[in-house]
Amino acid sequence: MIEKVNLLQKFGLFSEPWQPKIVAELNDTYVKLARLKGEFIWHSHQAEDELFLVVQGRLVILLRDGEVVLEAGELAVIPRGMEHKPTCEGEALVLLLEPKSTRNTGEVENERTIASQWI
Amino acid sequence: MIEKVNLLQKFGLFSEPWQPKIVAELNDTYVKLARLKGEFIWHSHQAEDELFLVVQGRLVILLRDGEVVLEAGELAVIPRGMEHKPTCEGEALVLLLEPKSTRNTGEVENERTIASQWI
Repeated sequence: MIEKVNLLQKFGLFSEPWQPKIVAELNDTYVKLARLKGEFIWHSHQAEDELFLVVQGRLVILLRDGEVVLEAGELAVIPRGMEHKPTCEGEALVLLLEPKSTRNTGEVENERTIASQWI
Repeated sequence: MIEKVNLLQKFGLFSEPWQPKIVAELNDTYVKLARLKGEFIWHSHQAEDELFLVVQGRLVILLRDGEVVLEAGELAVIPRGMEHKPTCEGEALVLLLEPKSTRNTGEVENERTIASQWI
């Protein structure tokens, strides 16, 4: 049988920001949920486009030449190679789509790099 | 610059059911929006997993051995090869993730087969 995913129920299972959790997979893609709060680092993914869909709150993705502001029910795709820095004044609950190969910090590896876990 | 997608604004651009529209692409995947109403046909996709995320309304996906009932804010992945028949008593607004190669009627080609358009 197929198990469905209730987004808010899954968000209720964790509280730490900037640690995407995997909730589904299809083809070569993971569906991840993340709580974003404050500032992340500038990074890019060399060979992978990344989708951000805001479920709750407000996410500002800084780009080198501007920004994208996403409210609940809005999505944007950051194309491969484009430097971006996600930031939130409050907390945003965000659904991410990424290839299974994607590292959260892109080409950067540092103390904020983590391997996503299934929830 | 990056153009964002507001889901409800995009749903407002069309009214016909069972005709998924493309609103974004990333990697080998299309993000599509569809209005589902009534019954679709039994079909499967031989080599492609498909994700359904309900934005508004209620979607019942019939399977040969049961069903998955999705309300707003819930998603499910139908794995490749699994026969399924989406049905809605009322109308559901649904976000779909599919490989760019996916045909809406899967292995079946008939009068309900369409090529998705960008909106």
